Amino acid sequence: MWGGRFAEGPSAIMREINASIPFDKALWREDIAGSLAHVAMLAKQGIVSEADAETITDGLTQIAEEYERDGVPEDWDLEDIHMTVEARLTEIVGPAAGRLHTARSRNDQVATDFRMWVRSAMQRAVAGIDALLGALVERAQEHADSIMPGFTHLQTAQPVTLGHHLLAYFEMLMRDRSRFADALARMDECPLGSAALAGTGFDLDREMTAEALGFARPTRNSLDAVSDRDFALDYLMAASQCSLHLSRLAEEFIIWASQPFGFVKLPDTLSTGSSIMPQKRNPDAAELVRGHAGRVIGCATSLMVTMKGLPLAYSKDMQDDKPPVFEAAGLLDLSLAAMAGMVADSGFDTARMRKAAEAGHATATDLADWLVRQADIPFREAHHITGAAVKLADEKGVALDGLSIEDLKAIDARIDERVFDALSVDASVAARSSYGGTAPTRVREQVEEARKRLEDK
Amino acid sequence: MWGGRFAEGPSAIMREINASIPFDKALWREDIAGSLAHVAMLAKQGIVSEADAETITDGLTQIAEEYERDGVPEDWDLEDIHMTVEARLTEIVGPAAGRLHTARSRNDQVATDFRMWVRSAMQRAVAGIDALLGALVERAQEHADSIMPGFTHLQTAQPVTLGHHLLAYFEMLMRDRSRFADALARMDECPLGSAALAGTGFDLDREMTAEALGFARPTRNSLDAVSDRDFALDYLMAASQCSLHLSRLAEEFIIWASQPFGFVKLPDTLSTGSSIMPQKRNPDAAELVRGHAGRVIGCATSLMVTMKGLPLAYSKDMQDDKPPVFEAAGLLDLSLAAMAGMVADSGFDTARMRKAAEAGHATATDLADWLVRQADIPFREAHHITGAAVKLADEKGVALDGLSIEDLKAIDARIDERVFDALSVDASVAARSSYGGTAPTRVREQVEEARKRLEDK
Amino acid sequence: MWGGRFAEGPSAIMREINASIPFDKALWREDIAGSLAHVAMLAKQGIVSEADAETITDGLTQIAEEYERDGVPEDWDLEDIHMTVEARLTEIVGPAAGRLHTARSRNDQVATDFRMWVRSAMQRAVAGIDALLGALVERAQEHADSIMPGFTHLQTAQPVTLGHHLLAYFEMLMRDRSRFADALARMDECPLGSAALAGTGFDLDREMTAEALGFARPTRNSLDAVSDRDFALDYLMAASQCSLHLSRLAEEFIIWASQPFGFVKLPDTLSTGSSIMPQKRNPDAAELVRGHAGRVIGCATSLMVTMKGLPLAYSKDMQDDKPPVFEAAGLLDLSLAAMAGMVADSGFDTARMRKAAEAGHATATDLADWLVRQADIPFREAHHITGAAVKLADEKGVALDGLSIEDLKAIDARIDERVFDALSVDASVAARSSYGGTAPTRVREQVEEARKRLEDK
Amino acid sequence: MWGGRFAEGPSAIMREINASIPFDKALWREDIAGSLAHVAMLAKQGIVSEADAETITDGLTQIAEEYERDGVPEDWDLEDIHMTVEARLTEIVGPAAGRLHTARSRNDQVATDFRMWVRSAMQRAVAGIDALLGALVERAQEHADSIMPGFTHLQTAQPVTLGHHLLAYFEMLMRDRSRFADALARMDECPLGSAALAGTGFDLDREMTAEALGFARPTRNSLDAVSDRDFALDYLMAASQCSLHLSRLAEEFIIWASQPFGFVKLPDTLSTGSSIMPQKRNPDAAELVRGHAGRVIGCATSLMVTMKGLPLAYSKDMQDDKPPVFEAAGLLDLSLAAMAGMVADSGFDTARMRKAAEAGHATATDLADWLVRQADIPFREAHHITGAAVKLADEKGVALDGLSIEDLKAIDARIDERVFDALSVDASVAARSSYGGTAPTRVREQVEEARKRLEDK
Repeated sequence: MWGGRFAEGPSAIMREINASIPFDKALWREDIAGSLAHVAMLAKQGIVSEADAETITDGLTQIAEEYERDGVPEDWDLEDIHMTVEARLTEIVGPAAGRLHTARSRNDQVATDFRMWVRSAMQRAVAGIDALLGALVERAQEHADSIMPGFTHLQTAQPVTLGHHLLAYFEMLMRDRSRFADALARMDECPLGSAALAGTGFDLDREMTAEALGFARPTRNSLDAVSDRDFALDYLMAASQCSLHLSRLAEEFIIWASQPFGFVKLPDTLSTGSSIMPQKRNPDAAELVRGHAGRVIGCATSLMVTMKGLPLAYSKDMQDDKPPVFEAAGLLDLSLAAMAGMVADSGFDTARMRKAAEAGHATATDLADWLVRQADIPFREAHHITGAAVKLADEKGVALDGLSIEDLKAIDARIDERVFDALSVDASVAARSSYGGTAPTRVREQVEEARKRLEDK
Repeated sequence: MWGGRFAEGPSAIMREINASIPFDKALWREDIAGSLAHVAMLAKQGIVSEADAETITDGLTQIAEEYERDGVPEDWDLEDIHMTVEARLTEIVGPAAGRLHTARSRNDQVATDFRMWVRSAMQRAVAGIDALLGALVERAQEHADSIMPGFTHLQTAQPVTLGHHLLAYFEMLMRDRSRFADALARMDECPLGSAALAGTGFDLDREMTAEALGFARPTRNSLDAVSDRDFALDYLMAASQCSLHLSRLAEEFIIWASQPFGFVKLPDTLSTGSSIMPQKRNPDAAELVRGHAGRVIGCATSLMVTMKGLPLAYSKDMQDDKPPVFEAAGLLDLSLAAMAGMVADSGFDTARMRKAAEAGHATATDLADWLVRQADIPFREAHHITGAAVKLADEKGVALDGLSIEDLKAIDARIDERVFDALSVDASVAARSSYGGTAPTRVREQVEEARKRLEDK
Repeated sequence: MWGGRFAEGPSAIMREINASIPFDKALWREDIAGSLAHVAMLAKQGIVSEADAETITDGLTQIAEEYERDGVPEDWDLEDIHMTVEARLTEIVGPAAGRLHTARSRNDQVATDFRMWVRSAMQRAVAGIDALLGALVERAQEHADSIMPGFTHLQTAQPVTLGHHLLAYFEMLMRDRSRFADALARMDECPLGSAALAGTGFDLDREMTAEALGFARPTRNSLDAVSDRDFALDYLMAASQCSLHLSRLAEEFIIWASQPFGFVKLPDTLSTGSSIMPQKRNPDAAELVRGHAGRVIGCATSLMVTMKGLPLAYSKDMQDDKPPVFEAAGLLDLSLAAMAGMVADSGFDTARMRKAAEAGHATATDLADWLVRQADIPFREAHHITGAAVKLADEKGVALDGLSIEDLKAIDARIDERVFDALSVDASVAARSSYGGTAPTRVREQVEEARKRLEDK
Repeated sequence: MWGGRFAEGPSAIMREINASIPFDKALWREDIAGSLAHVAMLAKQGIVSEADAETITDGLTQIAEEYERDGVPEDWDLEDIHMTVEARLTEIVGPAAGRLHTARSRNDQVATDFRMWVRSAMQRAVAGIDALLGALVERAQEHADSIMPGFTHLQTAQPVTLGHHLLAYFEMLMRDRSRFADALARMDECPLGSAALAGTGFDLDREMTAEALGFARPTRNSLDAVSDRDFALDYLMAASQCSLHLSRLAEEFIIWASQPFGFVKLPDTLSTGSSIMPQKRNPDAAELVRGHAGRVIGCATSLMVTMKGLPLAYSKDMQDDKPPVFEAAGLLDLSLAAMAGMVADSGFDTARMRKAAEAGHATATDLADWLVRQADIPFREAHHITGAAVKLADEKGVALDGLSIEDLKAIDARIDERVFDALSVDASVAARSSYGGTAPTRVREQVEEARKRLEDK
């Protein structure tokens, strides 16, 4: 393969470090699709004869059938998927196979193959996100009125509704979706025909191959086309952010499923027992999703470091682009599916959630707001008065609405009995009806809007 | 500030670990702008009186003047920029200051302030990219015909033009630009009015504040609005990719400026001497740009790790969002400016570049292509014949076009004298005129298109 | 400073990107110490005269006093701390100052300065760890018998003692301590005298300067000495691992302090209230410690990426070594102090912990173990029987020891009344007395051993 | 396996996300070794009968033979290597297999297995480093006198010897070696017997199993033992630093192998041709080593992020510890072997190196040093004079020693003819004989010392 210049064969180390076939065989569909498009174009342009093109096309079609049926053979001496396919083609069709590589190079070939693979991964990510978005909207509608403690610093802060909480993740995942959509638009250019680095003297029709492979247009600069892995980084970065969102949701499920919280009963299918503690119901899937965020971020780091400081054009370092993307894609697909299942199938203990919301003086802000509105007290002063009321309730061991009106008046004479209307969790939640707020009316509005956004996307 | 519940004051450790004022004072402009918009809305909605609103507005205006003139005072007991401004406002206007915090919280306040700051940073990045894009196009036009070796694996591969090489970076930077543009569109929502986490019972006009602060609309979910730092991650990830591109360009300048290459003379203004080796002309700026890629990536890693697994809503961990963004923005702005200067002002030694392109059998592919076209030999066989020719040239110590026609015919009888037309670097470059290729005609076309893209952006 | 070769002064960009004085002024003590050691050695070796050496020494001593009193002036044109000191020295002592730089370069100078700074940071880290280790042992002794639920997957698994739990962190922090100790040993070599990269022709006594600056020996290879930043990476990696341990402890405090858990009341000094929710007691310090892990890891990433692929010897990229180390050291010092305070001063609600341990069938394994021991049933079968007992208890809504002996016998006839001795949390904890186990006797033993390890360290 | 509590079987998602057998089957040797040690101890302690122990031992031995011969079967329903082995054991020996899991849990089992695997990986890394160290010393001795340009900022700075340059990497790799050695010492504790998290009530002899598995002692705290992955992080961090060193060496080989440098001819076995450019000799192995640094660092990042903020004890996230370690170990082993081969077998073009050293006024510092020594001029003034000489040489287009004595005297009258003795590269290199310097005498000394260090290690 190297021409006659290398007396010695590659050593065992070289065979192993150099061979990408163990992982890039995942690109076989894209590689054959790219070759089919290339040879069709070469024929149309008169660069290879129709007869040769037909022979090559038939050969490639046969190889696709073989790989579909038997898998891709892994011969390290053939290095990569491109040589593996070409070697087999030569076996099948003889010397005509050598015409396929006219006006292309492995550099533009792999850039094209990998770009198509990443495009599919992005589309799968969007589909996975859509399933999770759907589950979130369903459960949000169901729980538009279910009251739970809203936390800041994992401390009970104010009552919110579970529907509102779930819709927060709807927003995050919609942003993730838009990131993949942006990346798909940005990568919509076909590198095929850039050849090794400089373009070629053959009279190619790059628009034709771009269209055949589903791209909007050919890339504009051949040096960039073979040196660019932005599309892979775009995938890894969007995947990292998405994984971070999933890790937050997973963390909440794990905490909510702990005995002291007891907010949620995870679906049987997504939790496991323990080999030594039979009473356990472990949130394994949620933990794995949370853990996978680490690995996805590690994959992004990997490719960033690898690309740092590489001069143009193709360098072999770039062969290390694929393992992190393949790994991250596997993890992200699974994580999205697991979280969709968990959102759809978990049982929420709304009574327990409500009870937790009622503890911890979660309506203290409502008292402060009431003082501002009813007694026209500056917020900072109202805040101070509320602090005193909370302190007294703590000393008496009662909830804030367990204080008598006398107690409250002793703290500040401007308080009257209407205040109790503000201190229940139902009142608190219903009151927070500013746009984007947690009031059930608002949540239902947002559920409707969310459905429309899903339909319009 | 904490109400009366905490007998002890925060300890020295707490003062130091908790205080964000040393870095978040950078947000003072945004903080005051946000407060001005908030109080104007509160007044319009009748939540505070016009008189109070005017008093507060005047006070805030005065504070802005003070900070512009004297800087922001750094008192750790006031913790952050929000309390610093509010404390000063209280000194200036008295208890009315306490009304400003009605229907908001530091949680939505900081989310709004920081989002505005990041928006500006993204706009600065776009402007910095534009300057570099402009420089690249100028120099590409100037060097549309300048021949240099095109490298793969840092080995001389095929001749290319310097203009073509520079335009490869134009493509990269255009993608960077689009990443910032996408992020700007995605973050175009205003969190103000989300309050602590759940919205508020006050009758706010969030459209009004959103518009006043230059956002397209208010955020849709209050829990998400105070827990979301996607916009900061979007910045850091776009900055990371941009830094990687700059690190590649920097690496090339460093290698090109080394004595054995000698392709470029860096501008005096962006290189330095050595304290002990007076003859040195060190590419410090390029090295710093390359090094800065590490720090920008470190900043992105930092915020990803910090956000991993955080339950909703606001957690104090999120205070660690700002230092990495501030640091990365400073580094990216400088790196873009430095590379724009380097591209604009460097002197390219085109004679030396051309000479390097002529060495190393860079036209070997042209010989192979000639065999395919003129003698209808399958590419793989042509490749093998070319290998034999290169080997012979090496043995004779001549360039490929230094071989006699007899030598060539001895290798393969199908070669004739027309082959020499293909073996000069000028012929090689001119021939690669496929779309996206390195031929000067193509480069000039791309320069024109690049200019249009810059105008249309 | 550059000799006369650069007609133009460095531009504004260059001034800013090149100047390290804004951060490397932190090295002033080390820089002056290094210069004092260098000039003393030059004098002893007869390379500078005693008179010049004395003049220079006096000048440096004066500068140290000035900086101690007034801080280090920040003049970007002087670039870095080395030129800043030298420029001031020239003002004070005149041309003799020029003799100080004999046989050294900024390359070995900064390598020495920074190494000394990192050495101090490692020593501070060890001291901070020691304080936390001391607090852990104290509280572990106090709570050797306090029963709490031991969690796996954040699910109640088996009862453990709080003392045992705290000692788990003792082990982690001891490993962190050993990492810093290993790094201190590894970096105990002085680069001074390596000059720019190649050593020098002056007859230096490098042993003398190494000893004066507290190093065991001079570095063995001058090219390595000026290109090496392993010591900084060693610091960042040890700091990363330590931060990860602290993030785990912080996470536990945050979860334990949440209302549904209620295991711990954080010290007033290390928690805060909320500006809008006066009842809150937020674990800010713990959250910041958890968040800081992200930034410390980001700092480690930063320097790794920066160092990747740098050819020898000194490259300017390496100027980016300091900001991440300075940042990480500040964060680690604070984090260690905050966690020491939190461990020492938190109030544990042992009654509530015990109650949580009694819920959730935490002694199920004890039942299984009892079956193995008393009835010689293979563990896997015992596990299955226990599962049935737990299921029945769940259906009856009682704890495992709330089942009657009849209930238990109905599940497996081999069970008899002695089983109830195994089913209390006290019995469970006392029984786990294997080495390293949670039994109070074992915990007390480990407390004693821990004290000895602290004394012997 | 879960007891009877889970009516439904795990879903397809759960099967896939939960199954670790696809990767943890790599632990089969360690798993069986751990079980053999465990059952021998259980028998000695009378916890299982001698007969059962013998049966189990025979069964495990048979399984080991099967796996050695046929590989480990991958049944996702059996989840992991532990259940895979146990299920096969049950098939072979029947219910007695159930006694093997007495007094242990998968938590301590996997901690033990993985620790043993990592221990082997560290030992392999040390062996790989030793091979590279040996190659460096050999080539350093061979090239103790070979002169090459020493670079700073990739600019020719001062002449050095190739031997000296190679020994710089000897120092780096010795530090890497010590990092693995430190980590091996730190991890030398056996977790087996920690059970699920709390230890066990069975009367174990943990010293016995620790010794049988080659550990110095059992771990001291059962909660820590099952939650700790420091040993894996220690491996990844040492591997990261080692990879960074290899990436620097790889970068140098790549640059040195480029045509403009031409310092090195890479071994045939570790370079490749190009599919389209037959004359290429691509440094693929070096590029892959450089790229692998990115992936190893990504692996370290992965596990750091995964471990961040995990509460005690075992969480399922920790299952994600193995893929990054397995990946990094494969990459590091290959990278070390490739670089050892490259150092051992590369051909250095010493004539070309020397010629490059003679260009670029690399002896300018020698002129400055001569002025200090011979004319007692302060270094800074000598530096200025040298700058003028370099400028004149540049204008005349000669090397520094190509200036006439008149030219030099015109610049500074204190210069005399003896100066020419200092201006050749041989003189320059020979003069730098300070400890650690590049003088051939010093290099030979260091080669000797290096040999001793390798013998003593």
